[in-house]
Amino acid sequence: MRATILYGPRDVRSEEVEDPRILKPTDAIIRLSATCVCGSDLWPYRGADAIDQPRPMGHEYCGIVEEVGREVKTVKPGQFVIGSFATSDNTCPHCEYGYQSSCVQREFMTGAQATLLRVPLADGTLVPSAEMPSAELIPSLLTLSDVMGTGWFAADAARVRPGSTVAVVGDGAVGLLGVLSAKLMGAERIIAMSRHETRQRLAREFGCTDIVVERGDAGVERIKELTKGIGADSVLECVGNQESMLQAIRSARPGGFVGFVGVPHGVKLGGAELFASHVHLHGGPAPVRRYLPELIDLVWSGKIHPGKVFDLTLPLDRVAEGYRAMDERQAIKALLRP
Amino acid sequence: MRATILYGPRDVRSEEVEDPRILKPTDAIIRLSATCVCGSDLWPYRGADAIDQPRPMGHEYCGIVEEVGREVKTVKPGQFVIGSFATSDNTCPHCEYGYQSSCVQREFMTGAQATLLRVPLADGTLVPSAEMPSAELIPSLLTLSDVMGTGWFAADAARVRPGSTVAVVGDGAVGLLGVLSAKLMGAERIIAMSRHETRQRLAREFGCTDIVVERGDAGVERIKELTKGIGADSVLECVGNQESMLQAIRSARPGGFVGFVGVPHGVKLGGAELFASHVHLHGGPAPVRRYLPELIDLVWSGKIHPGKVFDLTLPLDRVAEGYRAMDERQAIKALLRP
Repeated sequence: MRATILYGPRDVRSEEVEDPRILKPTDAIIRLSATCVCGSDLWPYRGADAIDQPRPMGHEYCGIVEEVGREVKTVKPGQFVIGSFATSDNTCPHCEYGYQSSCVQREFMTGAQATLLRVPLADGTLVPSAEMPSAELIPSLLTLSDVMGTGWFAADAARVRPGSTVAVVGDGAVGLLGVLSAKLMGAERIIAMSRHETRQRLAREFGCTDIVVERGDAGVERIKELTKGIGADSVLECVGNQESMLQAIRSARPGGFVGFVGVPHGVKLGGAELFASHVHLHGGPAPVRRYLPELIDLVWSGKIHPGKVFDLTLPLDRVAEGYRAMDERQAIKALLRP
Repeated sequence: MRATILYGPRDVRSEEVEDPRILKPTDAIIRLSATCVCGSDLWPYRGADAIDQPRPMGHEYCGIVEEVGREVKTVKPGQFVIGSFATSDNTCPHCEYGYQSSCVQREFMTGAQATLLRVPLADGTLVPSAEMPSAELIPSLLTLSDVMGTGWFAADAARVRPGSTVAVVGDGAVGLLGVLSAKLMGAERIIAMSRHETRQRLAREFGCTDIVVERGDAGVERIKELTKGIGADSVLECVGNQESMLQAIRSARPGGFVGFVGVPHGVKLGGAELFASHVHLHGGPAPVRRYLPELIDLVWSGKIHPGKVFDLTLPLDRVAEGYRAMDERQAIKALLRP
């Protein structure tokens, strides 16, 4: 089958590899309907994460079940399924508490930018749908595997409520879907921080009411101006670097909530600043599995169209173009057709 | 009048100074019924905070109103009042949001280890009681000015709920009152981290169910053992150093809540660890003013006796002995009688 392997900084290749096989009785093999490139894939692509050995890439997926291990009960060959980027048994205490992405058996998925994918803990990780989705639904359903679930978690962690004033730091696909999530949760005002016209347009389409182009302390000042000096009730941090984290914390009102989902790189937070800020801070790998049933319903019923973040579609073997376009910010997110 | 002045590390003196006067029309002057030494006073006492000039000490107070400025409406001479260590107008957006300790007009009180005290923003800061309290109630009412309100905030920020499993890091007066607060909020299990017998005894009296004497990673391991490997639902951080913060974060379950109220000194939190931990983090200077009415009722009705944390009572002019005893951990908390 075709797979995507990262060999080193900016060296990503589409290659023929052996088909995956069932390794454990709880595994399933799925044939991917679509997959995509994640903003977090750009960290190793840019050399920010060490690459010791060739690394199979991709962790966002949906598709048709080909085969299941003998202990798999709830998922059957022929079904359409979506799963989280983090596997989960969905029965351990952390899963029951709603944090499936911290499941005691968690593995982070990899190798999903491919034709076929082995999914561990299939019963706990995959959500099968009753019917086959139409082709138009596939991109939106695919986003639920990570990017939409992560934007949703950012808004949930930032405790967006009806009437909230929300600021979103980061105009990547996660940030844009954070805007959509905040809108769905009833936010009255959604301030997107973006200096990129295409992304601003999509942010507006998803429900943002204000755009702030300034960054860092100037961005914080602008948020304060827009909120009568108070700060935002909820801030979604969707980047993961030092500047964006501080920008998020400083944009929130005292007692406000910061949801952070950008994988932190080089972030150090001073205890004294956190203390003085009075913010609530919550984040981490999104517990996508918790949200999947609800989000699948929202997509299936046509209430949300998160697939709009895909502004580039490529055949799987041209995956390297997708990485390049996202790295250069020419594309928001690249969908890959196996 | 008599006041307490810090001149340098471990050099605290009781001195005669001029009586305070009304400086602004929103001020009140109160005659202190009792005051005390705070754990946070030990930071400058130990030299951890720079002391540029002689510093009037003390921020916990209750007493009888002597005089009010001409704009003060809700507080009258002769009334018994308790106020927060942080002044507040109680009308600004931050106050209305419940974060009076981030009021736009906030000042941190100082000079309360004295006979008389000027309290700015008297209407918003002070809560008068309908009657004069009995002498036995005074120590417990005094704690509401900071230490009990801070323990309560720690438990509230750590979202203690009926049935919660709670860990408390720090066995100072705040930690002990955090135990009491968690108990009142319905915690089923309260693990106090303490290696000091007197404090362990008081923790048990306040409702703790388990004692952990280990610290750092060994302490975290012990909490994990006691919680079937899961971690605590809620952790109260009541110290403020690097070890205690990490111990708190690492003791919480994924998705759990850490309330931190120890004033951080030298604390730096890695973004990647916070992300992976999946904890909720909230803290800062306790919004004591928000809690005062409820806590006053609890003390007045005899439901709680937070004044038990005072295991040393001294006349005001012997304040230096109080600092010394607390610094050497011979006393939990020193009450001062003006």
